[in-house]
Amino acid sequence: MNQAPPQSYSKMLARPKIRLFVPEPFGPGLSLHIAAGQSHYLAHVMRAKEGDSIAVFNGQDGEWLAEVSMVGKKAVTLSLVSQLAAQKTTPDVWLAFAPIRNKTELVVEKATELGVSKLLPVFTHHAVVKSVNMEKLKAHAIEAAEQCQRHDVPQITEHKDLSVLLGAWPKDRILLFADESGHGENLHTLLHTLLPTLLPGKFGLLIGPEGGFSADEHHMLRIVAQVKAFGMGPRILRADTAATAALACILSQVGDWDARPNFT
Amino acid sequence: MNQAPPQSYSKMLARPKIRLFVPEPFGPGLSLHIAAGQSHYLAHVMRAKEGDSIAVFNGQDGEWLAEVSMVGKKAVTLSLVSQLAAQKTTPDVWLAFAPIRNKTELVVEKATELGVSKLLPVFTHHAVVKSVNMEKLKAHAIEAAEQCQRHDVPQITEHKDLSVLLGAWPKDRILLFADESGHGENLHTLLHTLLPTLLPGKFGLLIGPEGGFSADEHHMLRIVAQVKAFGMGPRILRADTAATAALACILSQVGDWDARPNFT
Repeated sequence: MNQAPPQSYSKMLARPKIRLFVPEPFGPGLSLHIAAGQSHYLAHVMRAKEGDSIAVFNGQDGEWLAEVSMVGKKAVTLSLVSQLAAQKTTPDVWLAFAPIRNKTELVVEKATELGVSKLLPVFTHHAVVKSVNMEKLKAHAIEAAEQCQRHDVPQITEHKDLSVLLGAWPKDRILLFADESGHGENLHTLLHTLLPTLLPGKFGLLIGPEGGFSADEHHMLRIVAQVKAFGMGPRILRADTAATAALACILSQVGDWDARPNFT
Repeated sequence: MNQAPPQSYSKMLARPKIRLFVPEPFGPGLSLHIAAGQSHYLAHVMRAKEGDSIAVFNGQDGEWLAEVSMVGKKAVTLSLVSQLAAQKTTPDVWLAFAPIRNKTELVVEKATELGVSKLLPVFTHHAVVKSVNMEKLKAHAIEAAEQCQRHDVPQITEHKDLSVLLGAWPKDRILLFADESGHGENLHTLLHTLLPTLLPGKFGLLIGPEGGFSADEHHMLRIVAQVKAFGMGPRILRADTAATAALACILSQVGDWDARPNFT
């Protein structure tokens, strides 16, 4: 049943080692003027030189090969060569999550890698973290997208209270809610049951803070029609573990795990 | 479709906040002499006082209620009261993983929470980390087990080379191998196909180092009958993300995610 050994090592090795998100229009021969932070990274961390190959993506035109055309004192310029891969669509899965002390960046990183299209920080009654540094979250999402070969960066919305999030939740999008009280059905079984009527479906996942949801929030969640409570077995997962684990279940079942990396 | 709001908050709040792994025989009225590290934690970090309630587990007798009977200068003594919950069996899923710089503890923590029975550190050609601090890994596993309400602590084996691990791999245990070359089938689909012939099955998961497996290792993996290569979609996951994500898929499908936490 095992397949032949992969023939793709040479392709893997030949791909540019540096990969950057550059939100500008792409086309053959076009120049890309790289922002200060990325220019610093290219010139001083990666020690890029004129003629070096870089992979770039802008969120809509797939992945392109670019060459370093100029390394200036303050800015690096790239010249677009050709498209390496057509744009891949990210699954339509959203993650609403309560920011967790010291772990919010980890959640953003894992969710970006696993293939979430939108991140929605949400404030809840038991939340310990009361503010979100949007610039930092965006930078983490970009870094994770560059590293994991995504063709886009997940959108990050401004934080809102759980009641506001639920009030505005789209009618046609299921919200899978990690019910830490243990009353939900096994996520795998729930998805298996929901799937026949819902594909191609729009999904959201809601993960609470370390302290769980308040009794009022539990009541509120149970009156929203789109909300489906789920469980993840007999152990109590940390909030960041719960986010990664639930996203893996969701994306393997309703996402794009049948697809393969570009280099195969 | 949503269930009634949980009635279990009072039970959750009434449970002892401190939970300790104490590998000694349990029985009503028996005394537990707590090791130095745990005594220090109890007395000086948690400021436990005589009469305080503590939950304890020893890996075989379920979860017990204990009372602090003495807080000495160097040691704390507990007195066992009664069993709170019968021993729960951990799924028979093993995780073989290449230690990753700064992230090995994270992998041990997540695998313990998700419900792995055995952790097998393995050395591979491209591994950056060349040694494993067994005491530190064990301490992390115990801490994670205490935190996540497990009734046992996963066994951790001494590290071995991949070739040794594969040579001694049990004939009746499937080894699911995270194939970073992208040639494996969607893990969810693979498990779905394997399941009818394999339940109740013995499973192992193999996760490579950040640099992936060498060409020789790929060849070696493909000649071992128990090995099944799998993929996790088009994005390249970090090794620690891959471990958590794959374990979530496996344990939701062949593990104990149908079970609920003790307090429900």
